[in-house]
Amino acid sequence: MFLHRKELAYEVKVDDPNPVFARMLQQAIGGVEGEMRVMNQYLFQAWSSRGPERYRDMLLHTGTEEIGHIEMLATAVAMNLDGAPTSVKEEAAINPVVAAKMGGQDPRHLLSAGLGATASDSNGVPFSGSWVIATGNIASDMFANVHAEASGRLLATRLYEATDDAGMKDMLSFLIARDTMHQNQWLAVLEELKSPVPVPNDFPEDKQNQDFAYTFLRHSEGAVPSDARWTSGKSVDGRGEFSEEEGRPLGSVPNLAPAPPEVHDGLEATSNGGGVIHKVKDAVKN
Amino acid sequence: MFLHRKELAYEVKVDDPNPVFARMLQQAIGGVEGEMRVMNQYLFQAWSSRGPERYRDMLLHTGTEEIGHIEMLATAVAMNLDGAPTSVKEEAAINPVVAAKMGGQDPRHLLSAGLGATASDSNGVPFSGSWVIATGNIASDMFANVHAEASGRLLATRLYEATDDAGMKDMLSFLIARDTMHQNQWLAVLEELKSPVPVPNDFPEDKQNQDFAYTFLRHSEGAVPSDARWTSGKSVDGRGEFSEEEGRPLGSVPNLAPAPPEVHDGLEATSNGGGVIHKVKDAVKN
Amino acid sequence: MFLHRKELAYEVKVDDPNPVFARMLQQAIGGVEGEMRVMNQYLFQAWSSRGPERYRDMLLHTGTEEIGHIEMLATAVAMNLDGAPTSVKEEAAINPVVAAKMGGQDPRHLLSAGLGATASDSNGVPFSGSWVIATGNIASDMFANVHAEASGRLLATRLYEATDDAGMKDMLSFLIARDTMHQNQWLAVLEELKSPVPVPNDFPEDKQNQDFAYTFLRHSEGAVPSDARWTSGKSVDGRGEFSEEEGRPLGSVPNLAPAPPEVHDGLEATSNGGGVIHKVKDAVKN
Amino acid sequence: MFLHRKELAYEVKVDDPNPVFARMLQQAIGGVEGEMRVMNQYLFQAWSSRGPERYRDMLLHTGTEEIGHIEMLATAVAMNLDGAPTSVKEEAAINPVVAAKMGGQDPRHLLSAGLGATASDSNGVPFSGSWVIATGNIASDMFANVHAEASGRLLATRLYEATDDAGMKDMLSFLIARDTMHQNQWLAVLEELKSPVPVPNDFPEDKQNQDFAYTFLRHSEGAVPSDARWTSGKSVDGRGEFSEEEGRPLGSVPNLAPAPPEVHDGLEATSNGGGVIHKVKDAVKN
Amino acid sequence: MFLHRKELAYEVKVDDPNPVFARMLQQAIGGVEGEMRVMNQYLFQAWSSRGPERYRDMLLHTGTEEIGHIEMLATAVAMNLDGAPTSVKEEAAINPVVAAKMGGQDPRHLLSAGLGATASDSNGVPFSGSWVIATGNIASDMFANVHAEASGRLLATRLYEATDDAGMKDMLSFLIARDTMHQNQWLAVLEELKSPVPVPNDFPEDKQNQDFAYTFLRHSEGAVPSDARWTSGKSVDGRGEFSEEEGRPLGSVPNLAPAPPEVHDGLEATSNGGGVIHKVKDAVKN
Amino acid sequence: MFLHRKELAYEVKVDDPNPVFARMLQQAIGGVEGEMRVMNQYLFQAWSSRGPERYRDMLLHTGTEEIGHIEMLATAVAMNLDGAPTSVKEEAAINPVVAAKMGGQDPRHLLSAGLGATASDSNGVPFSGSWVIATGNIASDMFANVHAEASGRLLATRLYEATDDAGMKDMLSFLIARDTMHQNQWLAVLEELKSPVPVPNDFPEDKQNQDFAYTFLRHSEGAVPSDARWTSGKSVDGRGEFSEEEGRPLGSVPNLAPAPPEVHDGLEATSNGGGVIHKVKDAVKN
Repeated sequence: MFLHRKELAYEVKVDDPNPVFARMLQQAIGGVEGEMRVMNQYLFQAWSSRGPERYRDMLLHTGTEEIGHIEMLATAVAMNLDGAPTSVKEEAAINPVVAAKMGGQDPRHLLSAGLGATASDSNGVPFSGSWVIATGNIASDMFANVHAEASGRLLATRLYEATDDAGMKDMLSFLIARDTMHQNQWLAVLEELKSPVPVPNDFPEDKQNQDFAYTFLRHSEGAVPSDARWTSGKSVDGRGEFSEEEGRPLGSVPNLAPAPPEVHDGLEATSNGGGVIHKVKDAVKN
Repeated sequence: MFLHRKELAYEVKVDDPNPVFARMLQQAIGGVEGEMRVMNQYLFQAWSSRGPERYRDMLLHTGTEEIGHIEMLATAVAMNLDGAPTSVKEEAAINPVVAAKMGGQDPRHLLSAGLGATASDSNGVPFSGSWVIATGNIASDMFANVHAEASGRLLATRLYEATDDAGMKDMLSFLIARDTMHQNQWLAVLEELKSPVPVPNDFPEDKQNQDFAYTFLRHSEGAVPSDARWTSGKSVDGRGEFSEEEGRPLGSVPNLAPAPPEVHDGLEATSNGGGVIHKVKDAVKN
Repeated sequence: MFLHRKELAYEVKVDDPNPVFARMLQQAIGGVEGEMRVMNQYLFQAWSSRGPERYRDMLLHTGTEEIGHIEMLATAVAMNLDGAPTSVKEEAAINPVVAAKMGGQDPRHLLSAGLGATASDSNGVPFSGSWVIATGNIASDMFANVHAEASGRLLATRLYEATDDAGMKDMLSFLIARDTMHQNQWLAVLEELKSPVPVPNDFPEDKQNQDFAYTFLRHSEGAVPSDARWTSGKSVDGRGEFSEEEGRPLGSVPNLAPAPPEVHDGLEATSNGGGVIHKVKDAVKN
Repeated sequence: MFLHRKELAYEVKVDDPNPVFARMLQQAIGGVEGEMRVMNQYLFQAWSSRGPERYRDMLLHTGTEEIGHIEMLATAVAMNLDGAPTSVKEEAAINPVVAAKMGGQDPRHLLSAGLGATASDSNGVPFSGSWVIATGNIASDMFANVHAEASGRLLATRLYEATDDAGMKDMLSFLIARDTMHQNQWLAVLEELKSPVPVPNDFPEDKQNQDFAYTFLRHSEGAVPSDARWTSGKSVDGRGEFSEEEGRPLGSVPNLAPAPPEVHDGLEATSNGGGVIHKVKDAVKN
Repeated sequence: MFLHRKELAYEVKVDDPNPVFARMLQQAIGGVEGEMRVMNQYLFQAWSSRGPERYRDMLLHTGTEEIGHIEMLATAVAMNLDGAPTSVKEEAAINPVVAAKMGGQDPRHLLSAGLGATASDSNGVPFSGSWVIATGNIASDMFANVHAEASGRLLATRLYEATDDAGMKDMLSFLIARDTMHQNQWLAVLEELKSPVPVPNDFPEDKQNQDFAYTFLRHSEGAVPSDARWTSGKSVDGRGEFSEEEGRPLGSVPNLAPAPPEVHDGLEATSNGGGVIHKVKDAVKN
Repeated sequence: MFLHRKELAYEVKVDDPNPVFARMLQQAIGGVEGEMRVMNQYLFQAWSSRGPERYRDMLLHTGTEEIGHIEMLATAVAMNLDGAPTSVKEEAAINPVVAAKMGGQDPRHLLSAGLGATASDSNGVPFSGSWVIATGNIASDMFANVHAEASGRLLATRLYEATDDAGMKDMLSFLIARDTMHQNQWLAVLEELKSPVPVPNDFPEDKQNQDFAYTFLRHSEGAVPSDARWTSGKSVDGRGEFSEEEGRPLGSVPNLAPAPPEVHDGLEATSNGGGVIHKVKDAVKN
């Protein structure tokens, strides 16, 4: 179960409210790189965890921390909406700064949320549960988590540079730091797992087509750089030897059985009589 | 530009068609772990690549390879739909095997696709472009790619074990092998990048709140295991020293400005006269 | 900020795991009536709250409680997936009970989640942030909340009757009770607001078209029941008198200006010469 | 079945077309608070109604009325798009008013719809059938309907204040009035139902965990206001007595069974030999 | 504005209710081939129509007719849900027919809709406004409409053959007939337009790259059939002469400018010192 | 399987980068009229094709061509983002041209993609697999394809006129030409099919309700134009004679069976005693 403390996890102050920045912050709330995603991702991973406890607990600690980050960002959005334009009356747009705000703000911040945050990204696209990754495989999930924090930190640094508001910069410097830690902690789990790749690491090698497990297949033109790490030498997982070759078909031309009549494939004779299609029909294989 | 060869990248045969397995295969086509996602992910990463060429090219090779995997799986779906039930007439369901098929197949395989594959996952949820990750940061993208291949290989192994069809097992043994290689090749890029973490690795440390960059914050109960890699010792990125502490609020209780009248917050005096809400209204801070 | 306790908010036990019931429980996690929706709804309402504090605090209490309900349900899903079929091999389906499970379970429970819960509804449709209602108007939000708890309790009672598992029934009897309380507490706020309707209750009546503010307009056939509460007598909001009349057009036939050429409306003369469309074009009004 | 009359339900005139306002009006067409939602909601409730006829009929009257409101708003969008910018050529943007329009308009109004309305909200997010609530429980549906009209009227008042176009204000004054009536009529049904809460009102009290049915559980800090309606006194549904207490865990720490091998949880011994994970693995409970 | 008549547009009777067929019927309500799509498509096309009146009116007639088809199908779904299983208790599944129903029915029909229809397709995927096509070009829209009716009629025939319920077959024979008429009427408009293709038919030919306007480009292997209508002879639009050639690149290898520093592309020198990436970085073109 | 060539299918140059045009180009990548849709549509149609080979091959040629168009457009987006604003600092907005860009650009182009393309439309709405039409009926699919190319060409012409960048105009003149060819080639297939309508063309006429197969039903007011092609004369499919009549109900008023108790329809007697609802309940038919 969960408990709440009234203070924010970190201070949130906005010196100069900007509704366009409010819109950008939405990416960090309800975007694919955002806090709703990591919160749910870590908690669902924990709730589905069938052991070991050390990782389940770790996920619960950090998943819970992330709820507080959503809270910080939602607060920051509301603060950035103070004084935002609430009309599209033309006289208001004579000033280019106001014009930029009228053009660049999220209309739903006013219309749907009354100057508050939404559970959406910076284009108003709603948060989707499909972004929540919890596969039941610890290594796969850790790679997902490292990526989530990598793209989250990348987003936070881009937001940092997009604003000159001191309060916002301070808040972001904290979130950037937390994303540093979180990247490191998921990597630490991968380190503990010793040989996590290839994920899953327990599928029997004799059931895998070994001929193609460590070969880089070229499907575009040109030579691969001679010093490429991925075409020669020991594979990163330590289980094979990299090689490379030209991609070529290993299968035959597919040939599906004809459709049964109840599918109505559109190729039946018609009352108008035949034409090319009948010749065609006759020529259909099998 | 792209070219097509008529033969499949690898042989696809189905010995004993099974519409429930056809539905499961959809996860590998249009699901979040599927081939449509990796194809688009690698190609969009390449198309947005502002260098270096070695990675751009590599992404183009493998992104192109993945289109052929979608082709294989779509073919496998169609083959598994041969002879699938095309009615829900009750007499057909007397046999439990048929009953399982009628219950477990995707109704759109017949109704919308005429016994062919769709651009959807195993629950019929359409493929979403929101799953395509291309951040413009090579390290972030590589972690996304390792995860994509990890969850893809995990899916393929689960499918492998869910069927006893020799043709399907052979096809999956090839896809599993390719996912092994692809995990390795994205990891090889990360190896070449030397110190990719924390992503992005060029954000100035003095703009990050260093006090919280390597500290595990506990937000749940209980002690962290004494041998945890993530609470002491050098951080995985080699730039800090892990520590841990109890999560505590570092900010104050948030206090937003009152809403302007045009937001209509619902707290205005009404013609019916007051009550608690008026006392409440008087007490609203700032 | 938020904290976590390791014990569940209420006991979760499953006596006889059933993967079809696991799928049904997903509706209560990631469905439109589910706990992810109410958790986010109450918290976003709180985070956007510009006062009064009593309601902001109340929302924080209950929004936090709901996270624990997601935790309970996700645990229940995982427990119901113990022993679920992990293959579609035909011999397994000889037993009708197994056949029902193979047909009725969510394939992603195995394929994507490794026998754990997902952030989706009972059809695998992902949770959507668009379901999170936080309008910035306290009365509007309270009606949304009453409905959310009404449909949530309805769902829980239907789940209660769909199972004969004692553990699940006990868990649901608790969730049903909480939904009772939550319905009551949102209604209590509406009671405190004294005259919340029509929402928003501060829009000037002289700017509303008063002629149609309390009139039931008939757009279907037949008389309205003579004892209908909504066609005569004082309106429920106490501000008007109900009446009824036949719906009739109050506007004119719309007539849009022609499209500018760069829209390419498809009506231009073509090199093939005219026909009906030219007569048509000539006849286009304005 | 349905019939159409050519005149609009109410007059729609635009004095000064504004493409940014056209975009805002989309929220009232295809947004979660919009007319497509209420139209479908009332009609689906009617079509699924298993009695009584008085409510089924009422829903059909008003659901049909709402189709005409979509028609009005779609007409208003098209009228507001007269003269909208159809290029992004830079010289056009020298005027800040034009700049605001170029920034703030929906690009799909030109590109996809040729200066007409779309079935989307003000951010271009498509209308979703998931917003259509029809639960089969009359009381639950009525609360959904009151909320739908509350948020719809709130949206209409915000639109009213965002424009100074006399035609648009007149149209909105009518829609605002209809939303007043519709709120009242759904409330009138709830009044007729006498004791609709807790919804559903016929679930046996002895199957509900009565200990928690009227208790406000605190999950955040601080005391609840002493005059709070929801912590003491008779419950609003008249069936219980409000109380309050500190939220505390009533369950135990969850402990899931280990995953079966075909899930590939990532914890197996590897050919590289062990490390922490092996110790970890040994320690996994049950 | 719209009016409603209480009788259905055509008789709806179900002799033998079947919840699996109810699920399949959902495809015709809220699926991409369904009635919600055509209703909205025709009405939005009409509402955005800037003339001529004859087509605007025609769209209004048929768009209105389609609302009545949704009504029929929603009624049919509810009737097919009479007696549907409302539990997943195992003893109920002993009969294979019941097992098929338990597996094959839509769980939300019970859980969310109380045995009524939803605004979703046969997999429970919600209707999406993105399927509503209204481009502002009459010819483009007519092709969209012909396709909508073609896939709709195809769906209806597949449903017809999937059931042996006489009432359902009769209802579908009516819907199939209406789809016949609707295909014909949209084709009649195309006939009136004389030379609608290429759509849009008024884009100046000298601004189109004429070298590639009538050439079939081969991007796969093998010869095109010698009697192919699309590689020689007059083009179908009567404006060109078909030819064919091998697809070949007409552009150069793309080469994007390097990313500005605030994008953080991941290629900066790090405190750990260089490696391959530095050589790589030096080699980045422009 | 697929191969890639490094050069673009056609030259892509941007003389004067414009981030607002970059946003508009997204419609042609990930929008419903865009290249991701046609690429997938043609390839899925091919992969599900059960013959004849001539059409399967044709679809593979053109589907493969379309991948190269996505590549061109993604390159064009990236080029248009060179020099795009990367901050919302107010001083930057003093120039109205910059203000228009800041307002009109897609924030995710910077935040999520680091100045590259996304798999989304011009409003940031992700590409959806639900737009990919492959019905298993050749005629239905060809109409879908003609429409896809019609709306695609319409979009390209609107983009052509929205820009004055010579490079972009040249690229679009090529894409416009290809859409001309593609419209023609799908029409050529329909010509070969001789009598494709009504689709599907092999459903037995005696199972269709012939009384309504060629009758235009009026559901709106007013006379149909006397020269309307769709109300008299031979039907376009050559199989019937057009007529017209007033729409009228052919069915009865629907009357569903009462809900079973486990649905909880909200109409049960309550402990508070009756009221109108009890009279109502008594009056429920059947």
